[in-house]
Amino acid sequence: MTAEATIARILAHPRFREAAAVMAREHDRTVADIVALTEIPAPPYGEAERAAAYLDMLRAHGLEEVEQDAIGNVMGRRRGIGNGSTVVVAAHLDTVFPAGTDVRVRREGTRLFAPGIGDDTRSLAVNLAFLRAIDAAGIRTRADILFLGDVGEEGLGDLRGVRHFFTEGRHRDRVEAFFTVDSPDVDRIVTGGIGSKRYRVTFRGPGGHSFSAFGLVNPAYAMARAMLTLSALPAPDDPETTHCASVLGGGTSVNAIPNAVWMEVDLRSRSAAELARLERDFLAGVEAAVAAENAARSTEQGAVTAECTPIGDRPAGNTAPDAAIVQLATAAVAAQGYAPQHEYSSTDANIPMSLGVPAVKIGSGGSGGRAHSLEEWIDVEPGESLRGMTASLAAILAVAGMEE
Amino acid sequence: MTAEATIARILAHPRFREAAAVMAREHDRTVADIVALTEIPAPPYGEAERAAAYLDMLRAHGLEEVEQDAIGNVMGRRRGIGNGSTVVVAAHLDTVFPAGTDVRVRREGTRLFAPGIGDDTRSLAVNLAFLRAIDAAGIRTRADILFLGDVGEEGLGDLRGVRHFFTEGRHRDRVEAFFTVDSPDVDRIVTGGIGSKRYRVTFRGPGGHSFSAFGLVNPAYAMARAMLTLSALPAPDDPETTHCASVLGGGTSVNAIPNAVWMEVDLRSRSAAELARLERDFLAGVEAAVAAENAARSTEQGAVTAECTPIGDRPAGNTAPDAAIVQLATAAVAAQGYAPQHEYSSTDANIPMSLGVPAVKIGSGGSGGRAHSLEEWIDVEPGESLRGMTASLAAILAVAGMEE
Repeated sequence: MTAEATIARILAHPRFREAAAVMAREHDRTVADIVALTEIPAPPYGEAERAAAYLDMLRAHGLEEVEQDAIGNVMGRRRGIGNGSTVVVAAHLDTVFPAGTDVRVRREGTRLFAPGIGDDTRSLAVNLAFLRAIDAAGIRTRADILFLGDVGEEGLGDLRGVRHFFTEGRHRDRVEAFFTVDSPDVDRIVTGGIGSKRYRVTFRGPGGHSFSAFGLVNPAYAMARAMLTLSALPAPDDPETTHCASVLGGGTSVNAIPNAVWMEVDLRSRSAAELARLERDFLAGVEAAVAAENAARSTEQGAVTAECTPIGDRPAGNTAPDAAIVQLATAAVAAQGYAPQHEYSSTDANIPMSLGVPAVKIGSGGSGGRAHSLEEWIDVEPGESLRGMTASLAAILAVAGMEE
Repeated sequence: MTAEATIARILAHPRFREAAAVMAREHDRTVADIVALTEIPAPPYGEAERAAAYLDMLRAHGLEEVEQDAIGNVMGRRRGIGNGSTVVVAAHLDTVFPAGTDVRVRREGTRLFAPGIGDDTRSLAVNLAFLRAIDAAGIRTRADILFLGDVGEEGLGDLRGVRHFFTEGRHRDRVEAFFTVDSPDVDRIVTGGIGSKRYRVTFRGPGGHSFSAFGLVNPAYAMARAMLTLSALPAPDDPETTHCASVLGGGTSVNAIPNAVWMEVDLRSRSAAELARLERDFLAGVEAAVAAENAARSTEQGAVTAECTPIGDRPAGNTAPDAAIVQLATAAVAAQGYAPQHEYSSTDANIPMSLGVPAVKIGSGGSGGRAHSLEEWIDVEPGESLRGMTASLAAILAVAGMEE
């Protein structure tokens, strides 16, 4: 059966229609959950309070094995009728906003404004709406569905929640597919994860007076050379690969050779192999730049050294266009009248993609904008919201094997 | 007559001996003046309160034409018996310490501890002691002696007080010689001024996302190239010439091509011609680096530019070893049993030296240490203090033409 046919049969199924009706009836509750969760701050590395609240909500929804793991993810399992093979439906708990950010929700008509409301708090509430709907409609699936609220998706969180889930978590060997529901747009299906490696490189030297110690090695020159080497590294268009020296600093006084300077570097690729090559070449370039500076000037008071500290590591990966999860998600989105696009991005799906687990990012429905800004907003107008939710729920049920 | 003979005759003169006796009798008053002036804060660009106090002291000492000029220097003239040709005896009002620094003086035996006490507050009080002594002893000189308390000697003050005095001041055309009394040591006579040019260079570009805007020009790479060009510029040992990239910064986020980065650069030379050549080559290197970056990557969203802002300009210069002021100062120091050394440094004397006005830095007497630190100290033990003061006063009177 084609993906389109599978989706069509699900959409036509009385139990699915009942589930969609439940979501519509309960839309106000979903919105209330969005507001409640949004107003619990969840800054990077500060998701505990929201995680505890979400854990209670998962338990209240009657899931089994409701738990919080060692890194702070919360989750619960809805049993299928199969062998325990598991489809994960995730949303991330964290926002990019620091502690102290005003996270109160302001409402203007069907628009809700608050930091983090679309990315990704709405999805946490929408996943609960999915759960209530399929429970109320008596839907059974072949696979278990594990609902996951994960920590550390954003920025320096560096995907640590989902990384932990797939490297240490007790469910990791049973996962057959992974959905991350992230941000409202349902037409943009993320099927590839851009890998990134980020480093902070600190170059140190003996320092000294700019005049009386002239001739000693200068760590700024080692850094300059490392930057120029980076700037000239190959960066193929396909698979798309990029590099950037982005933030830098150091030195103490205009009349002193600096003791230390530093730079941050961002390396990215759609291809894990290209990313590994780029990383290797970058690190070799740093080493060569240090050696060149130590050869160019006096090391009598000490040599220049470089310390490369990883500050980000998101593995590249992708789910093949012909994988069932991609085909079904695409068909489900198209069936609601959207024009699905396949994209590469950096999301929780990077981790399973990098491990060969079929994974996509889908949307929570409705619209939104200004993510990562204090003006972040979503629209919860019921028609558009439910259309998107219907698409995503159909995709999930198709992959989990909804019983006919 | 040799310089040694001139100094010997001055030292043996009954009026000079009386002047030295006055300094000895009034030593406690000199110390009290040091303490009083030290405890008036004089941070960079904040010398006004101390200047006002010193202006009052100059006036109380009976000088003529006591005044404060437009930039904040205070001064007064002691008439000579000649044609008004003038010898300047300066000390700088400013310290390196910021507003709010605790400048109270702590005394341990003959040691006084306080920020700025030796560099250069002691000299302000010692110059007043010189004035009282020669007045009390009835000494007359051929030249007028202009006592100057000047602003802006330290750091970013950039010698603005003495620069103004010699470029705008109404006395500038009558100056035949210039002494700056700066810090206690009398054996280290500064006869050369190391010139310096300091720049803050800001490189700007369009910026953009590190991944999606990859390929656009990056101002950090232009800066890196400018740094490496600087690092390779010739820096002769003689005349000693140096260059340094010292402080740098810029960028906003690890995942963004920076909009702007900046560096501070220090260029120095004993030779004005070498310094000018170095500056020209450095600025040309910045321009070439910008051009290279704009050629290496896309300028579609805008090109990289560089803005070179001067943040320091101390002219190089020197007073010839056979100039009378050097010979006389050296003989006066040697006559007190010190081993005089000639040094290059960066002091108020840079300005007259650069203009061809004979100038040296001499000492205020006694000992001291830890200048520019919060632990700065001086020793006011009378014997050593008066020995140094006697040397410096003899040098001044020799240059000003003490009447036999």
